[in-house]
Amino acid sequence: MKYPPVQYHDYLGLDHLLNSQKRRSEEFGHPAHDETLFIIVHQTYELWFKQMLTELESVISIFSQTQMPETDMGTAVSRLERIVGIQRYINGQIDILETMTPLDFLEFRDYLYPASGFQSFQWRKIETLLGLKIQDRLQFNNSPFYKHLRPDQQTEMQKTLERTSLFDLVDSWLQRTPFLESSDFDFWKEYQTAVNEMFQADLEVIMSNPELTPEVKARNQQMMEGSQKTFHALFSEHEFNQIKAAGQIRLSYKSLHAALLIQLYRDQPVFQLPFRLLSSLLDIDELMTQWRYRHAQMAHRMLGQKIGTGGSSGHDYLKSATEKHKIFTDFFNLSTFFIPKSKLPKIPLHTQKQMGYGFQS
Amino acid sequence: MKYPPVQYHDYLGLDHLLNSQKRRSEEFGHPAHDETLFIIVHQTYELWFKQMLTELESVISIFSQTQMPETDMGTAVSRLERIVGIQRYINGQIDILETMTPLDFLEFRDYLYPASGFQSFQWRKIETLLGLKIQDRLQFNNSPFYKHLRPDQQTEMQKTLERTSLFDLVDSWLQRTPFLESSDFDFWKEYQTAVNEMFQADLEVIMSNPELTPEVKARNQQMMEGSQKTFHALFSEHEFNQIKAAGQIRLSYKSLHAALLIQLYRDQPVFQLPFRLLSSLLDIDELMTQWRYRHAQMAHRMLGQKIGTGGSSGHDYLKSATEKHKIFTDFFNLSTFFIPKSKLPKIPLHTQKQMGYGFQS
Amino acid sequence: MKYPPVQYHDYLGLDHLLNSQKRRSEEFGHPAHDETLFIIVHQTYELWFKQMLTELESVISIFSQTQMPETDMGTAVSRLERIVGIQRYINGQIDILETMTPLDFLEFRDYLYPASGFQSFQWRKIETLLGLKIQDRLQFNNSPFYKHLRPDQQTEMQKTLERTSLFDLVDSWLQRTPFLESSDFDFWKEYQTAVNEMFQADLEVIMSNPELTPEVKARNQQMMEGSQKTFHALFSEHEFNQIKAAGQIRLSYKSLHAALLIQLYRDQPVFQLPFRLLSSLLDIDELMTQWRYRHAQMAHRMLGQKIGTGGSSGHDYLKSATEKHKIFTDFFNLSTFFIPKSKLPKIPLHTQKQMGYGFQS
Amino acid sequence: MKYPPVQYHDYLGLDHLLNSQKRRSEEFGHPAHDETLFIIVHQTYELWFKQMLTELESVISIFSQTQMPETDMGTAVSRLERIVGIQRYINGQIDILETMTPLDFLEFRDYLYPASGFQSFQWRKIETLLGLKIQDRLQFNNSPFYKHLRPDQQTEMQKTLERTSLFDLVDSWLQRTPFLESSDFDFWKEYQTAVNEMFQADLEVIMSNPELTPEVKARNQQMMEGSQKTFHALFSEHEFNQIKAAGQIRLSYKSLHAALLIQLYRDQPVFQLPFRLLSSLLDIDELMTQWRYRHAQMAHRMLGQKIGTGGSSGHDYLKSATEKHKIFTDFFNLSTFFIPKSKLPKIPLHTQKQMGYGFQS
Repeated sequence: MKYPPVQYHDYLGLDHLLNSQKRRSEEFGHPAHDETLFIIVHQTYELWFKQMLTELESVISIFSQTQMPETDMGTAVSRLERIVGIQRYINGQIDILETMTPLDFLEFRDYLYPASGFQSFQWRKIETLLGLKIQDRLQFNNSPFYKHLRPDQQTEMQKTLERTSLFDLVDSWLQRTPFLESSDFDFWKEYQTAVNEMFQADLEVIMSNPELTPEVKARNQQMMEGSQKTFHALFSEHEFNQIKAAGQIRLSYKSLHAALLIQLYRDQPVFQLPFRLLSSLLDIDELMTQWRYRHAQMAHRMLGQKIGTGGSSGHDYLKSATEKHKIFTDFFNLSTFFIPKSKLPKIPLHTQKQMGYGFQS
Repeated sequence: MKYPPVQYHDYLGLDHLLNSQKRRSEEFGHPAHDETLFIIVHQTYELWFKQMLTELESVISIFSQTQMPETDMGTAVSRLERIVGIQRYINGQIDILETMTPLDFLEFRDYLYPASGFQSFQWRKIETLLGLKIQDRLQFNNSPFYKHLRPDQQTEMQKTLERTSLFDLVDSWLQRTPFLESSDFDFWKEYQTAVNEMFQADLEVIMSNPELTPEVKARNQQMMEGSQKTFHALFSEHEFNQIKAAGQIRLSYKSLHAALLIQLYRDQPVFQLPFRLLSSLLDIDELMTQWRYRHAQMAHRMLGQKIGTGGSSGHDYLKSATEKHKIFTDFFNLSTFFIPKSKLPKIPLHTQKQMGYGFQS
Repeated sequence: MKYPPVQYHDYLGLDHLLNSQKRRSEEFGHPAHDETLFIIVHQTYELWFKQMLTELESVISIFSQTQMPETDMGTAVSRLERIVGIQRYINGQIDILETMTPLDFLEFRDYLYPASGFQSFQWRKIETLLGLKIQDRLQFNNSPFYKHLRPDQQTEMQKTLERTSLFDLVDSWLQRTPFLESSDFDFWKEYQTAVNEMFQADLEVIMSNPELTPEVKARNQQMMEGSQKTFHALFSEHEFNQIKAAGQIRLSYKSLHAALLIQLYRDQPVFQLPFRLLSSLLDIDELMTQWRYRHAQMAHRMLGQKIGTGGSSGHDYLKSATEKHKIFTDFFNLSTFFIPKSKLPKIPLHTQKQMGYGFQS
Repeated sequence: MKYPPVQYHDYLGLDHLLNSQKRRSEEFGHPAHDETLFIIVHQTYELWFKQMLTELESVISIFSQTQMPETDMGTAVSRLERIVGIQRYINGQIDILETMTPLDFLEFRDYLYPASGFQSFQWRKIETLLGLKIQDRLQFNNSPFYKHLRPDQQTEMQKTLERTSLFDLVDSWLQRTPFLESSDFDFWKEYQTAVNEMFQADLEVIMSNPELTPEVKARNQQMMEGSQKTFHALFSEHEFNQIKAAGQIRLSYKSLHAALLIQLYRDQPVFQLPFRLLSSLLDIDELMTQWRYRHAQMAHRMLGQKIGTGGSSGHDYLKSATEKHKIFTDFFNLSTFFIPKSKLPKIPLHTQKQMGYGFQS
């Protein structure tokens, strides 16, 4: 009543929206029933991509602040979780597209050349803003991935590539994590001690077991030494930087410590939201991977071994990209360095209080 | 190559589509982040409604033919099943809308007056084309349901109400079902005999059971006589027509027989597709009901007991409509009259051959 | 290596588990293929109910502590959220059960008498532990709901009914919420002021609008006064207690304030977990409601109007219980009292600091 | 009433079922909350695997008959579709397992050695009965895949490997398909003509297009000749058998024709069920692939790069098996040879009648 009235139909722009399904097959005189489905499936995808971008841009804004207010953290996390919810949902949309059989698709496929899902600007933008770097993408026809896009989109994509990605923002934010070294708790030092003690104890259990043969003991010892080596690469900043220089890891040394701290002590109130933040990044990556994988499967089923418009079969490309375009791999690998709660160094009372809420101090 | 090239972006009309999210909150100077989600959720709903209508119209065309080619039946069924798939999918979309909390909604709710989901022309059209009659709708404010719509939509809705609905088309089609009475198989007569024999046999088992007390026997007998009565209403066309006149049933007498025949002998090749047709109608009805129910729940959670714009709480209206707007209730109730396969009259060989494929005769 | 080895098969008790599907139809000489499905659907349900109970019991333990450690809150919330995840998942299981047609069910239905899902002890226990009181249950055959259960289960259910439910524990916990009245922030007083100012401002906008007719103005004023009344019942402890005595509300006066505080200021770090706690209770309730509703629908489809073993049709009972057995209705209704963020009283700096983390003070 | 009464609890064997969750962590004195979840997730998987096997065995029985009654086909298809439904459902179960974090898993992981999902006898049996041959499995530690199983299970697996798989049964059934060569319709000959005419027409369109440069024309011609070659391998039984001998195809020459016939003319009543049969095989394969893929992802997230008990990382193995263990690849590849409906040879009236129902002749 305080604002000029608005009707549902106009608010949603339905007059235009519901008239935006122009079948090429109809234009060329052979209307194919299923082309409407094909169009609507892709239009709804793009609408959801827009929503994902809306949330992503807002999270990037939050993390780009020089001083992020504490109250923003919950907002950022719930928006990332909304992205996860959208992904989980639209990954199921393929089931509907698959009600169109390969033969139905052939009815209008010829009219679509060279339009292709590879040209989705928004999907590429999501990948880029999350942190996928151009050099980490699967190479295709020796030209940058954005060459399929419209000139103005190419320009925008180049600008997007220069922006600070969510990966980089989270990397910086992790480096600023308090508690890595507080007055009475040196996490990194204590964690190393705990790891070494754990290995030592495990070894003793095995060596003193009268039922094991010397061969079994030797083999066990060897395996444990292998594990220990993996850990030690983490303990030496020098070794770590070599691995990083070789491109096997992307996070900074300090961020990795912080991420580990958050994961290991996620029960502390102060780490609850950071823990959910890291979890949602893993979820997003995992669900994008599933999206690519399922589309690869569908392309296989739809087209068989037909040669795609670009000279290679679509499903081979998609299957290759599935894993290669993963962004937060370092966070997946982090579990390598988890140790059981019972072996974790105890946090001194003073620090633990700081990890809780002010009102109790 | 044979047709002028088209690009993904233009084919899908993305320039316009992705610019159709006009936030009222932004227009009035208080941009609310979640309004974009709200718009996109409703826009994707409407796109899917369009797809459902596309399939529905095509099925109606198929059933409106004076002589339906046999090859059309598979097409009709798979399109109805696609509607089911879409419904199953979009019913899950509420989960995403529920990531918007009531407080987030309050940020822009005032700007939306009097827009409301009740104004969805397409949803009303789906209900109407399926067969929901105006007199069976929940009355609201003593005006016909389409009074909320735009004048041109009101006109179109009136025309739609005059069209032959899918319910009516299926009713007619059922009446034409062959096999209700073939040269050597009178389904209806044999079914009645089978039912009576079944009751008789059940009764004897109970009466001759020495472990049951007279009271238990009497109670059982009473219950069985109650059941038998329900069946007998079905056996007398006169009684049936009284029930129909009282509005408790909508199908014609002969259609009900045909639907029962199809359900009971669905293993016969000739009834496979008709069986799936009936199943998909039940699915569509059930899923529309679930859609209404979940939206009622969401309205409750979002608004509590707040009085809606129309003077009644939204979730009460939706909960009332949930069951009332069911269309194919007769088909749900049909199971009342199912009898176990082992009691079914056997189909004579000649008729059974006719229910199979020609090539084997 | 440190522990005696265990094999997958033995660990899961598969020898027994996979031999626990005893078809009655087979026992009585007429094996029905689909009875295995029927059994497995119910067995998996019961396994998931056990998991839900495991989580529920653990949450109840956490809230039963006289002094709950801060680090337990995250655990409690993630366990409730796991229950939500399980519910969302198993609600989809009905789709599989529905691949069994009514006719398939008839093949073995007679052998099952009087076994019924009403006898699920675990489901009843979940409802009871969440907080469903015996007097709030739908009456059935004039005997307490647990009369269908085995004697030892009846005894256990009586004990369960005497335990403090999650509803009651959350009610007590809410009453202990700090911040309802801190040194510089009296939430309840400021909230009332804000509500009154909001109504006042809204009224002025309308009354000073030259485009509105006196009739429209009068109608608006009346509606707003109605809304205001609802709020005022909340402001008077006396009125509130009358409503509570009449059974229209179950939460205590102070808990309701606390719940409102949490919802309205959920962005504050200290309220993040409490907000998710309340949300998960709503989710659990909503999903249990959906579970009942979908089972009611399925019963209708499976049995039509057949009279159930207890003398009433199963789907009518289930549909009636759907809403009646809702537990956290007060939390759903809470949205009635939400006001837009822009109208919320600002929290003074000192209190706001206390709502954040200690390390920053 | 006619049968001895049975109670829900006893019917489902709940006394035992709900006491089959023996936590190793509890046995060794360090009860880990999440181990119950871990056990129940795997127990419900195994229950569903049993259901899948129940359906699979029944379908195999149906196809093993020397003369399959027409009425069995619908049963077979609906049971395969039920398997698909179960798979779609349980693939979502991973979401629940992922609510257990890597750190929670570490609490009890050490107690489980060497139990592993690789030891699931039922999963291996499903793969084998569908048609996965031992030589097509990913090699692991140079010992046959069933060496991880219990001796009696090894014996049963060896027997299972010798049985005729569903793949082989479908292969034989396809070879028996009528209509490959009827009195007035030689499908294979007409299909070849249609393919050749299609290529010829496409080539002419391109060659006579004045807007194309000679280079573009040449490139197009080359691509089309490549496509044509793929088709010709299909037209020569000799070439086909070479490809088959090289292990690139598994179906017989005649089955491939039949499968193509079914796909291309699926609208004919007689091919409706065969079409759904082939589709469900694709679905089953696709969903098993997704199951493996998602478990690979989960293993990565749960364990990082930790070395598995068998000396290799679990997720690498799973990712490799994902595609390699696909069984019905030939049916996926079939779309390579689809041609648009408009180019399909018309079926003469006499044959078309035979593809319909007897009652109309």
